[in-house]
This record gives sequence, C-alpha cells and structure tokens, in this order.
Amino acid sequence: MATACVIVCGGGPNPALDQIENLIQAYDQVYFVGADRGALRLVKAGYVLDVALGDFDSVSEEERQVIEAHSQEFQAFPSEKDDTDGHLALDLAMNRWPEADYVALGFLGERGGRLDHFLANIWLAHQPRFQAGLSRLTLLEAHHKVRFLEPGQHVLAYEPCLYLSVISLTPVQGLTIQGAKYTLPATDYASPQSLISNEYKASQEPVEIAFESGLVMIFWVNQV
Amino acid sequence: MATACVIVCGGGPNPALDQIENLIQAYDQVYFVGADRGALRLVKAGYVLDVALGDFDSVSEEERQVIEAHSQEFQAFPSEKDDTDGHLALDLAMNRWPEADYVALGFLGERGGRLDHFLANIWLAHQPRFQAGLSRLTLLEAHHKVRFLEPGQHVLAYEPCLYLSVISLTPVQGLTIQGAKYTLPATDYASPQSLISNEYKASQEPVEIAFESGLVMIFWVNQV
Repeated sequence: MATACVIVCGGGPNPALDQIENLIQAYDQVYFVGADRGALRLVKAGYVLDVALGDFDSVSEEERQVIEAHSQEFQAFPSEKDDTDGHLALDLAMNRWPEADYVALGFLGERGGRLDHFLANIWLAHQPRFQAGLSRLTLLEAHHKVRFLEPGQHVLAYEPCLYLSVISLTPVQGLTIQGAKYTLPATDYASPQSLISNEYKASQEPVEIAFESGLVMIFWVNQV
Repeated sequence: MATACVIVCGGGPNPALDQIENLIQAYDQVYFVGADRGALRLVKAGYVLDVALGDFDSVSEEERQVIEAHSQEFQAFPSEKDDTDGHLALDLAMNRWPEADYVALGFLGERGGRLDHFLANIWLAHQPRFQAGLSRLTLLEAHHKVRFLEPGQHVLAYEPCLYLSVISLTPVQGLTIQGAKYTLPATDYASPQSLISNEYKASQEPVEIAFESGLVMIFWVNQV
C-alpha cells in the first residue's frame, strides 16, 4: 500500500524544515499544507503547497502573493476567528487525506515561540475533530518530537535522544514503562501526570509503554 | 498585615531576574529559594538565599561551593528522584511560608527551555500538595506571566501586554469573559480548552473572568 504523509507547517518560529527531505524519502507521497507564515516558510524553502490557508495577518501583501503563486489552492480566513491557523490547517489535512500520517512543523514553538500557542497545539488532542488522526500525528522540531498514544501497547524503537518523557493529558490507568532507564510497574494516576527525563538504555533496546485508559504524550527531547 | 513573597528560581534558561527588584519593592518581606542552577543564578545576581536545594547536577563543584557559601540553608538531593528540583523548591516554599505569595522564575523555559519541563511545571497545578498555595503562585518570565484561577469571580486589572489567553487545565463549567476584546457568555467545556490571543480593550478596563468548576490558567503574553 502506498504511504502518504501530510506536512503541515504552522506559524511558530524555527520550524524544522530540514526534516522535510527525510520525510520525502520515507513516504511514497508527501503533501504540503501551509498555515499563514508557515506557508511562506515552506514556499521560501522551495516547496509548492497543495494548500495554503490562514488569515495571513503575519505576512505582507507581497508575501501573500508569493504564497498564492506557489500554492495549488489558497484559502483566506478572517483574522478574528475561534480557530488558530495551525488548527485549521491540520483539520483540513486530516479531512482531505484521512489515511495519511501527519507531521506538524512550527507547532511547538521551541526556541522562542509563544507558550500559550504551544499549549493550544497540545490541547488539540482534546478536540473530537482530531481524534481520528491523532495516533498518526507527530509534532516535530529540531529538539523535540511529540506523539500522542491511545490506550494499548506501544513499542518505541530506539532513536538517539537525551530524554524520553511520558506526559499524560488525562488520568491514566495501568500505565507501565518497560525497557527504559527507569521502569514503571502498572500504576494508576488520578490526574494528568508528567514523568519526565526518562531515557533509552545504553543497550538501545526499545521502550515499551502500555496503559488501559487515558491519553499519553511521548516527548523525545534533544536538549539539556 | 505584613506581606511576604517567596521567589523560587528554577533551572530553566533566562529567568527574569530583573523582576526581583520590583518584587522587593512590592512586599514587606522577600525570601529566596534557589533550585539547582537557579540557585546559582540568584547568587550570581547578588542575592543571599534562604534555601538552596536540588541535586546540583547542573553546576560544577566550584559553583556548588559558591551556592553553599551564599545560602543560609543548603539541601542536596540525589540526582535520580521522582521530583524535579523546581517542584522540590516550590514544595519547600509553600510549606515553610504557607501564607506568602510565590513567584517562580525559570519555570516556563521561554526562549529555549525544554518543553517537557514546561509542561511538568504547568502540571504541578494538578498535584494535591500545591493546591493550598496555587492561587498565590505566579510563573513569571520576560514575555509570559501565568497564574492559576480557581472557581469564582476574578478581576484582572489592566496591565500592558499583547495577548491575554485563557487556558483551562480541566473541563470547565460556566466560563465567562467580560471586559476583554472578545467576550464569552457562560459556556461549559467538556475538556481542557485553549482560548488564546484575547486582549485587554484599548480603554484599559479590567477583564473579568468567572467560572463555577474547573481550573483555569491566565497567560499574559508579551511577544508576537
């Protein structure tokens, strides 16, 4: 079966555009959706967008025209709306390519982004409209990668990083961590929990995470 | 009644040490608690600490001695522990000065901190041990200020900022926002909600926030 990935670039600073070539290698088909200034960043990096959308209040009129000239589809929204441009873009991506993987760049705001925007982008995991694609979504930047896990058993293959943090967004039942530097026997947590600064073992074995109910994030962290 | 403030400095990058003099002006008594590298930052800024604590794995042996020489009390913890140094420091502050206000610097990690640490510092609001002092806690940096609101009515006096974001950590019942650029009639949210990029009006009137149940954060944001 052909594999597809939608790269969604939001307006946060320093999106990890240098990851795009790896994604192009890894998938049969890659689509590009740019939100506002994120669209400009993708265009400036040389990519043609499948869709550009947003209120475009963070770009000049000239930049807006550059985006439109390099986008197969261009959707302009009013500035005063309930959604962020990033959420609109991810929503479109999940609706148009419902079977794909999704990689969101410029959503974490690492190295200088707004912290309230970061939380809004984590909180998308609480929204019903993003549930169907949530397990196929990666928030990716240079020093942090975030994925959302649903209940069940998950094997996290070794990859080079300094820290592996397990942070739940909800109460969690029966959370176990195996194969990591710090293991966790089956534990229930009555409120959202942050188990940060775990690590893969030097032996590079995979880390296994399981839980029965709740929603868990994994952070791969590459900075001290 | 005499007013007291405990300044807790954690290990995140770029703590807003320049806010300390304002706090010293505003309170009758100011205490200093430094966690790990945060202790070093306070000492280097010229302050004598009431308590320094942490595993001190982020400072050199020489720096450790400098901290100890400028601290009335010094508590060293093992490196492999469940708590972060920042949480230990805040826990100590709330236990030792149970009536005080608490200002935590170096907890938000803005401009380059670890995002999993930031979430762990937001998630402290879920921990029972921090409940008694939560409404008197401010997480403060140069471009973001965060406070936690418990159910009831709250008046947020005008202060210069670009954005005022209302982000709940839980489901919320009967949330209203009045006096802001975007008002909200009484609304129930079944899951954590991010209402970001609101603003004070140009008329500088206070913003009034009320809700019946749940836990809400306010972000004052001073960057685009």
